[in-house]
Amino acid sequence: MSPLSRRGFLTGLSVTAGGAALVGCSRAVEPAAGGAPQEGQIDQVAVETRLQDAIVPFDGVHQAGIATPAQAQLNLIGFALVEGVDRAGLTRLMRSWTEDSRRLCTGETPLGSLEPELVTAPANLTVTCGFGPRVFDVIGLPEQRPEWLKPLPGYSLDQLDPKWGQTDLVIQVCSDDPLMLSHATRHLVRSGTDYARVRWMQQGFLNADGARAKDRTPRNLFGQVDGTVNPREEEAFDEQVWIHDDGPAWMQGSTSMVMRRITMNMDTWERLDRTSREESMGRRLDNGAPLTGEKEFDKPDYDATDKYGLPVIDRQSHMFRAKAPDDHPEQKFLRRPFNYDIAPEPGSEQLSNSGLVFLAFQKDPVLQYDPVQKRLDEADRLNEWITHIGSAVYWIPPGTSADGRGRDAFWAQSLLDDA
Amino acid sequence: MSPLSRRGFLTGLSVTAGGAALVGCSRAVEPAAGGAPQEGQIDQVAVETRLQDAIVPFDGVHQAGIATPAQAQLNLIGFALVEGVDRAGLTRLMRSWTEDSRRLCTGETPLGSLEPELVTAPANLTVTCGFGPRVFDVIGLPEQRPEWLKPLPGYSLDQLDPKWGQTDLVIQVCSDDPLMLSHATRHLVRSGTDYARVRWMQQGFLNADGARAKDRTPRNLFGQVDGTVNPREEEAFDEQVWIHDDGPAWMQGSTSMVMRRITMNMDTWERLDRTSREESMGRRLDNGAPLTGEKEFDKPDYDATDKYGLPVIDRQSHMFRAKAPDDHPEQKFLRRPFNYDIAPEPGSEQLSNSGLVFLAFQKDPVLQYDPVQKRLDEADRLNEWITHIGSAVYWIPPGTSADGRGRDAFWAQSLLDDA
Ligand code: HEM
Ligand code: HEM
Repeated sequence: MSPLSRRGFLTGLSVTAGGAALVGCSRAVEPAAGGAPQEGQIDQVAVETRLQDAIVPFDGVHQAGIATPAQAQLNLIGFALVEGVDRAGLTRLMRSWTEDSRRLCTGETPLGSLEPELVTAPANLTVTCGFGPRVFDVIGLPEQRPEWLKPLPGYSLDQLDPKWGQTDLVIQVCSDDPLMLSHATRHLVRSGTDYARVRWMQQGFLNADGARAKDRTPRNLFGQVDGTVNPREEEAFDEQVWIHDDGPAWMQGSTSMVMRRITMNMDTWERLDRTSREESMGRRLDNGAPLTGEKEFDKPDYDATDKYGLPVIDRQSHMFRAKAPDDHPEQKFLRRPFNYDIAPEPGSEQLSNSGLVFLAFQKDPVLQYDPVQKRLDEADRLNEWITHIGSAVYWIPPGTSADGRGRDAFWAQSLLDDA
Repeated sequence: MSPLSRRGFLTGLSVTAGGAALVGCSRAVEPAAGGAPQEGQIDQVAVETRLQDAIVPFDGVHQAGIATPAQAQLNLIGFALVEGVDRAGLTRLMRSWTEDSRRLCTGETPLGSLEPELVTAPANLTVTCGFGPRVFDVIGLPEQRPEWLKPLPGYSLDQLDPKWGQTDLVIQVCSDDPLMLSHATRHLVRSGTDYARVRWMQQGFLNADGARAKDRTPRNLFGQVDGTVNPREEEAFDEQVWIHDDGPAWMQGSTSMVMRRITMNMDTWERLDRTSREESMGRRLDNGAPLTGEKEFDKPDYDATDKYGLPVIDRQSHMFRAKAPDDHPEQKFLRRPFNYDIAPEPGSEQLSNSGLVFLAFQKDPVLQYDPVQKRLDEADRLNEWITHIGSAVYWIPPGTSADGRGRDAFWAQSLLDDA
């Protein structure tokens, strides 16, 4: 971003960031070359920092924030549509949220921004939008609702709290900068307030940019490497995540998000010795390797037995129960969870209040996600230390293009316009 | 940190990080040169990242986390001492918390660490400990309690919620990495649990490392540059912050912390135009310059008037009311506030729940802090949009040295041992 364009938005003008398209690679580590600070220029102009031009392209065949390497910070916001909002209202909301998000994500000040100074470094900001089941009724197209867009069946161990339940809309804001995250969230909540109100906000985190190499798998608060078995190549995403089928045009390139809020009981987990912790997962704690291997990505050998003839990878370990069975290779999806760690509820006996904002993306939650969750619910040694307390399912519209050519100009445009 | 020492702590051994002392400069931006990954070595060994060796020295004449440039993330934890804990118990707690914190901050695994894998990058971690007024009774030394270690007088606009009130102990954990922050917090809460229980936890943030140049003043959620007038040189710290007087030996090098939790009402603030926002502060929004100047650090001209003969810097602006009057130069202190932005309380009419975890450090809150707060309480245009909802005062013991030579080996040792 040139000093000129930067000054542009600091004075509150909304300009096209000249550099954005060129620099448009995500994870840019070096600041773009900027002119040396000039006497008399607004101070701020001269500041060039590492995350300033770290921009994840907003537009694309698919929404950003899914195949995007997980950022350091998450705000997941569930919204209820305001009473009386109909298809026209939702269309207005989608248009304005998309436009604002496009600007925020590329480091430009959205129209009507009230704290333009806070847009300094997108820091890999992504904004991802989803629709809950009720939206299809609201827009008068219940027959268009995808078959799978409904509550997951209850599982025997669920202890769901309605406070973390299904909402009409969801916005997933992710960034490597907590201030940018907060500002983008505020901007969208405020600009959408005539149409949608916050029901819940779930905040999460992984490592800061620079505290873990970006190609490394993150860890959760049990200390486990979490995210090893996940689609990485485009092919795997096409197979597991992106909807491209003979369904309606407005569905192509979309996906679904399952949200599960899952507490992790640190107090009881920490009573376990390391061996038991590793056995409950089937993987090593130090580097995430399967217990039958050496390195994180080694193929697990489920037939290997120890000297007593018992399987090295326990049949009730999390990974054994979670993996797609040979005869059901479709039971795979993208996991993109974030850790949470907040103050214990008043009166709680527990020392910490932590867990995962567990987000899974797949073409079809009923076919791909539910069978896995069922197997885990029936028997997963991890169940002793984790509890599901929130659940929701969303349709995640396809990606967009700024000029609307070949793709929706705003989220779900072709559903809302033509369907 | 050499690959060897890194491997050391990954296997759960507690080793001295060979590099730590040498690399010991804070804000190290380049990763220390590490050997190339070798086949067969534990994967993790090879990872070298920017924040990995960003270490703030733990020991020193003063505790770290005060003069330390504010990190990206804050967990401020208020603790109540467990019923029955006496001077001996508190001594044990201080010894173990100090030792654990020293290790965590230098990138070593504390003894008894239960998730050693989570200590990968201290990322400028600091841990700072403070005592509330009651501690001096608990240790049987009420007569030693500093005169100023008592609740601030109530102010007319206070709306204090007991849930954010005074506690026996406070731990301020700061880091540029949210995972390190969470793990360090967990470790200390758990290891202290026989002696102290969490009463509240306040989480805050500024920019991520890399999203703002480190020598730049941060911004709060009103978009204001916040922290311009603050001690920066050692001299100013000696004048305003560090206690060095003819009092008892255990006080030398210590300071005090005032905690105020202050909501900032974004909904009403955002109804203001930019001019009114700037007038309420006396400074420009874009770069924080006084309204009579051009650049952030320009000296304000309080006598300047506009074409109507009115002062350019309003007499009821925040900065005019907050500044030390000419005849009371002692009314200065270090402000080290963090933004907070959490989910609105259920039933709240407001779109956001945000503000400042406002932390002020000074030799004597009664002399230095209270008069300023009084003036602000009487008249500060900012009062229309902010509300004080929490308050506490702590004594912050002096710094430490690992071998206890010349300084306390653990927090408040010379108070607890000899006084
Ligand atoms: C707090 C809850 C959970 C924790 C701590 C957790 C942790 C882990 C860890 C450490 C792994 C191994 C490394 C990896 O492949 O990423 C893993 C694998 C996996 N988990 Fe979870 N998980 C949790 C909940 C879930 C849930 C709710 C599901 C879906 C219903 C799930 C599905 C999977 C799958 C599919 C794998 C990969 C299995 C394989 O093919 O090897 N996990 N999980
Ligand atoms: C939400 C509450 C507050 C906000 C948003 C806020 C914001 C600001 C801002 C933007 C400045 C000007 C730039 C700077 O010098 O940092 C400032 C200055 C200052 N504030 Fe605050 N402040 C708040 C509360 C307080 C409180 C509670 C105190 C102490 C009782 C305080 C004391 C000061 C002082 C001493 C200055 C420097 C004045 C000078 O010498 O120019 N502030 N504040």
